[in-house]
Amino acid sequence: MPVRNAFYAQSGGVTAVINASACGVIETARAHASHIGKVLAGRNGIIGALEEDLIDTSLESTAAIAALRHTPAGAFGSCRYKLKGLSENRAEYLRLIEVFEAHDIGYFFYNGGGDSADTCLKVAQLSAELDYPLQAIHIPKTVDNDLAHTDTCPGFGSAAKYVAVSTREAGFDVASMARTSTKVFVLEVMGRHAGWIAAAAGLARTAPAEAPHLILFPEIALDEARFLARVRDTVTAIGHCVVVVSEGIRNASGEFIADSGTRDAFGHAQLGGVAPRIAQLIKERLGYKPHWAVADYLQRAARHIASRTDVEQAYAVGRAAVELALAGQSGCMVSIVRNSDAPYQWAIGHAPLAEIASVERKLPREFITEDGFGITEAGRRYLQPLIHGEDSPPFRNGLPDYVRLNNTPVPRRLAKAFKVA
Amino acid sequence: MPVRNAFYAQSGGVTAVINASACGVIETARAHASHIGKVLAGRNGIIGALEEDLIDTSLESTAAIAALRHTPAGAFGSCRYKLKGLSENRAEYLRLIEVFEAHDIGYFFYNGGGDSADTCLKVAQLSAELDYPLQAIHIPKTVDNDLAHTDTCPGFGSAAKYVAVSTREAGFDVASMARTSTKVFVLEVMGRHAGWIAAAAGLARTAPAEAPHLILFPEIALDEARFLARVRDTVTAIGHCVVVVSEGIRNASGEFIADSGTRDAFGHAQLGGVAPRIAQLIKERLGYKPHWAVADYLQRAARHIASRTDVEQAYAVGRAAVELALAGQSGCMVSIVRNSDAPYQWAIGHAPLAEIASVERKLPREFITEDGFGITEAGRRYLQPLIHGEDSPPFRNGLPDYVRLNNTPVPRRLAKAFKVA
Repeated sequence: MPVRNAFYAQSGGVTAVINASACGVIETARAHASHIGKVLAGRNGIIGALEEDLIDTSLESTAAIAALRHTPAGAFGSCRYKLKGLSENRAEYLRLIEVFEAHDIGYFFYNGGGDSADTCLKVAQLSAELDYPLQAIHIPKTVDNDLAHTDTCPGFGSAAKYVAVSTREAGFDVASMARTSTKVFVLEVMGRHAGWIAAAAGLARTAPAEAPHLILFPEIALDEARFLARVRDTVTAIGHCVVVVSEGIRNASGEFIADSGTRDAFGHAQLGGVAPRIAQLIKERLGYKPHWAVADYLQRAARHIASRTDVEQAYAVGRAAVELALAGQSGCMVSIVRNSDAPYQWAIGHAPLAEIASVERKLPREFITEDGFGITEAGRRYLQPLIHGEDSPPFRNGLPDYVRLNNTPVPRRLAKAFKVA
Repeated sequence: MPVRNAFYAQSGGVTAVINASACGVIETARAHASHIGKVLAGRNGIIGALEEDLIDTSLESTAAIAALRHTPAGAFGSCRYKLKGLSENRAEYLRLIEVFEAHDIGYFFYNGGGDSADTCLKVAQLSAELDYPLQAIHIPKTVDNDLAHTDTCPGFGSAAKYVAVSTREAGFDVASMARTSTKVFVLEVMGRHAGWIAAAAGLARTAPAEAPHLILFPEIALDEARFLARVRDTVTAIGHCVVVVSEGIRNASGEFIADSGTRDAFGHAQLGGVAPRIAQLIKERLGYKPHWAVADYLQRAARHIASRTDVEQAYAVGRAAVELALAGQSGCMVSIVRNSDAPYQWAIGHAPLAEIASVERKLPREFITEDGFGITEAGRRYLQPLIHGEDSPPFRNGLPDYVRLNNTPVPRRLAKAFKVA
């Protein structure tokens, strides 16, 4: 087997552990120097391949690559750039192959969610059609936890842990203040289409009086009257109420609550934020003093409180991608297979990309309580192991000591430039 | 010296480490059983004393009291309830003395900010006037860091660390995404009157390209044009921009930006949130895609990322309060004295409450850069040691294992009820 280079790229919204997958890819590739030459990374994801803007990771020290394991976000840059279908946009796919050929790339490792799984599949198909030898392996990543054929998606467990920890902490805070001040706290979490992250907040609750008292899922249309009655009942019973709300909740007509009619002084539609709207609703209708928080990027970047399970799985899927490629696999995604809930046992598997690319994995209805405001025991059994364990990064001067790579460009070999808009 | 009981209460907004002060008080009192009987805590702060709703902490196990050191928020409940002046409201002060007398309380430990320092002073004055023997000691606590005569306030260091860590993490995230997606990230932090917490975010930046690129302080009137020009310049230079904004920023007319004219669909003024307004401004004027987060209670409850320095100081001020009282002191606040910046050396001191009660400590102008958008070396020297060190709580099932006390009430001894509205 000739020594060929590998290409690695990060795609879509980053996570606290996507760099742990990068670390798994690069460390494993370096351990197989008899088959893999350099790992070249795409600067800003697949755009780096299209524009032939490649990063030579072989110029990074062993220590810097090891530090990727504890560094959040995308060390090489990510992108939101979806390649269209092969028939509509063959030029871009051909360009990828052209760049790969120019840099003797025989391995394509694409680290992302559903859209990148689709791109990875098409690259695998086109390289086969063109007889260009390429092992294309998809490495799962998304805080949304919505990829099919894997028990979980690296990145989700750490976002889940952040949200559960924050919910517990805010719950202690508002319980302290409720007698004379704030009675309701609303925390907005990510999840435009599915309530996986909101569900994870439910792990903070181990007794009925504990936060979160109510979870609002995108899967359950918001019934204002029922919701407000539950808030009032909770405050009446225990003096306060913590609500975790998914950014993607909708009303009975299917409209996003976050988009519903709030205007600034000039009549412009206002930027997102469902938590302030829910807080406003509670204040106006029930008269309780609310506080609210929007975690936004903090929840997916919080490497300082990452789940050890998630870090280990993120590294493992990176390592396995290289091992699968070396074993001759292509057109597949590395997956995580659950063998048991308690004790939690998992293994690495893989699944054909054709079965993954266009399937969205929904939060099962049986993970949500019948009343629609909490998680069931089945949900808890699924979620609990994913936040297990801590994996603190090293600290320096009181702050996490995250690595910044040199990201040295590989000299271009192609005469033709290709500019992504 | 006869054995007498102690009263301890928590006041105002809680912090990640106020229970560490409670732990210091109770453990130290228990170690001096020859002088101090029970520590009775006020349920929901001073209201518990007024209503004779006391908690018998002697019924809590050694382990439970020790666990207060790593548990955020107010274990006995806090309150926002400011006693008026002695002349206006002598009845409430007399009631306090009456309750203290009924429960043989000879020590009054009040754990709060500026308002509670004032109450503590008045209780000391009235007990002296009435010849009721009472050692009244104030224990400093506030994330606002605005108490005079102490180098810092327990609670601030941990909020500062949370904000600096979160800013660094979000900075890594937006840097990854900026090529094709979010270019500006806005994080709103606490600080209605002073920019201490916003300033702490500046610690995350150790090189010009690092976040935060711009800090908006309540001390500096927002000049929209200058601010937007700096955002544009930053995005032009490095591709993205992270802004940390204090909730209390004002425009040149002195109006809070958070209050400025945003209405919901029904014309109602909308609930706070300066981050979405700044994000909206950037989107409309510069066309950059923004994301924003509001940390709210998460920043002051985040015991999982508490500063070890802060935890140690919080415990130490609780311990010192008991020791000062036993040494015969009254009418004073425990303080933290800085002996050197680097290496950071501090000691416990104390200061008369008369000099503290009505003084607000401002963020010095020399801690803010001349352009008004960052912190100076002097600011960094002051802030840096306060976030130093980690003090992770124990974890169970992936979540911090915080304690919930039994909070058993002390039987009432007074016939007369006293109800706080």
